[in-house]
Amino acid sequence: MTKPPLIRFKDSQIELAHGAGGKASRRLVEGLIAPILGNPSLDDAALLSLGGAGLAFTADSFVVKPLRFPGGSIGELAVNGTVNDLAVSGAQPVALLSTLILEAGLSVQVLQAELEAIQQAAQTAGVQVVGGDTKVVEHGKADGLYISTSGVGLLDLRVRLSAASVRPGDQVLLSGPIGDHGITILLARGELDLEADLKSDTRSVWPFVQALITAAAPGLRWMRDPTRGGVATALNELARDTRLAIRLLEERVPIRDEVRGACEILGLDPLHIANEGQFLAIVAPEYAEAALEAVQAVPGGAEARLVGEVVESPAGVVYSATGYSSSRVVDMLVGDPLPRIC
Amino acid sequence: MTKPPLIRFKDSQIELAHGAGGKASRRLVEGLIAPILGNPSLDDAALLSLGGAGLAFTADSFVVKPLRFPGGSIGELAVNGTVNDLAVSGAQPVALLSTLILEAGLSVQVLQAELEAIQQAAQTAGVQVVGGDTKVVEHGKADGLYISTSGVGLLDLRVRLSAASVRPGDQVLLSGPIGDHGITILLARGELDLEADLKSDTRSVWPFVQALITAAAPGLRWMRDPTRGGVATALNELARDTRLAIRLLEERVPIRDEVRGACEILGLDPLHIANEGQFLAIVAPEYAEAALEAVQAVPGGAEARLVGEVVESPAGVVYSATGYSSSRVVDMLVGDPLPRIC
Repeated sequence: MTKPPLIRFKDSQIELAHGAGGKASRRLVEGLIAPILGNPSLDDAALLSLGGAGLAFTADSFVVKPLRFPGGSIGELAVNGTVNDLAVSGAQPVALLSTLILEAGLSVQVLQAELEAIQQAAQTAGVQVVGGDTKVVEHGKADGLYISTSGVGLLDLRVRLSAASVRPGDQVLLSGPIGDHGITILLARGELDLEADLKSDTRSVWPFVQALITAAAPGLRWMRDPTRGGVATALNELARDTRLAIRLLEERVPIRDEVRGACEILGLDPLHIANEGQFLAIVAPEYAEAALEAVQAVPGGAEARLVGEVVESPAGVVYSATGYSSSRVVDMLVGDPLPRIC
Repeated sequence: MTKPPLIRFKDSQIELAHGAGGKASRRLVEGLIAPILGNPSLDDAALLSLGGAGLAFTADSFVVKPLRFPGGSIGELAVNGTVNDLAVSGAQPVALLSTLILEAGLSVQVLQAELEAIQQAAQTAGVQVVGGDTKVVEHGKADGLYISTSGVGLLDLRVRLSAASVRPGDQVLLSGPIGDHGITILLARGELDLEADLKSDTRSVWPFVQALITAAAPGLRWMRDPTRGGVATALNELARDTRLAIRLLEERVPIRDEVRGACEILGLDPLHIANEGQFLAIVAPEYAEAALEAVQAVPGGAEARLVGEVVESPAGVVYSATGYSSSRVVDMLVGDPLPRIC
């Protein structure tokens, strides 16, 4: 499979959109970072064979604002985000490292609360925080605290995931309602005159992935956690990498009324909104029902749905079949409606 | 070996000194971070047995200011710092992840130069950058860019390092001249009316460690790279952990005239100044000469010296024997003469 030619990165300075997970991020990563570092897998966990063990290895930075929000906080996000990167690469998360960049003047109470959130989330996810590092910068040179987390996981030998294994007819499984995290953060900033009874979906998806592997390993082709850029961006990347199309059955995509309402008012597409506790899986058709049942049987998985299908064409495109025999193209996120979402 | 009781952390807000690597850092880590995360090895690489492989796993953040300085830059530091943490844990560095926190408005030229520095340093050190992540924060919420690097290495089965294996009579090996990095950064800020023909010592120490392991593995007890807090802090931590004393032969410690001169003018102790390309090793006496010769035989190792010895008492103390039969206690770094040194 030949990848399409790399985008050229021509911008002269970094903008917030370069961190939003959509087209600008992709341009930065594929047009500048990946060519220099000579590395094709900057988005996903890296898979390594080391001393005879099959490992996944991943790292993320977290700069979410505000630090605490309904349903979670930066510390919890930093654990679950890294755990989920490992999980969707088919690896059982084992150990984490967390590095902190603290702003001088940060309240120790705030730091303590985030350390406790890290520890609590790690315990819930069944991983150990085995080390880390702390740096301090002057007041005004960070925003409270930033966390970088890296994680190592043990690859489950029953699965072999790759975009290259995806075939027309494969089904798209989505683990639950979308947009909760992004809209929660947006509202938590208090800049909009909008309230909703909503909280972040931050959680470890490993229990769901584990159930999915047990039920449907031979039919499991590809997984991704649709964080920055949302479901639309993750599926567009898949469509592009496979040169196939995704037919999304939009009416099956679970979206809470609060998220739908906020998106309508703000002119956002829920498919572009970040999630922190969901995943997408591409499953061979003969395993799709078993996969869905397995995910639904895990507590918190009842709202999982099969939301689409891989089709031949138009190559590289995600489109939504609306149910009225019309359809619309679902593009990647462009611009940055939601800076510092994770 | 029972560790002394943990220090209690009573500060109400974070100060720059908490990031300087000396006593305040130690109080933060041992009094707050480690108790909450339930983790005794926050300073060093964590050792894991995973899928039958013995691995070392480490992470650091880099916030050095300025981004570029004589002899190196933040990107090069981010690679070598992580590589060296793995090396001194007795592991061959294999793979790195690098996460970037970029400030909106950062020049892409600056970013590109640091990506190239990362790639060049990784190549020189024989490791691969296998992944990463990029976040962007608003202008004024970072200082150009911060980098967090994590690394995984394969433990060399010939060595088993621990403070608990250190015995009176063991020799202290130092790989080369101290203080170059810290003084270079201090002068590069241009805030002092001082110039010197000096550059950072940033480099991978793995070639030296590898030679040391080959020549003296059975006698190799403990290693550490004396970064923030310098040689004095690293040896004080060893003295404390072993409840033994270190007799430092200060006249044998290699220090360039430029570093000595700058320290005299600024009232700093070279033993407290950060290094980014040196390491300390504790070696059983019968292996000390072979160890020294092995390190000296590696290009860049000619200035390695045996600079001291482990003795029984006074327990927990590092002292300098000055050669005039007098001696002085060499304490850990207190306060923060050099913020954002790495």
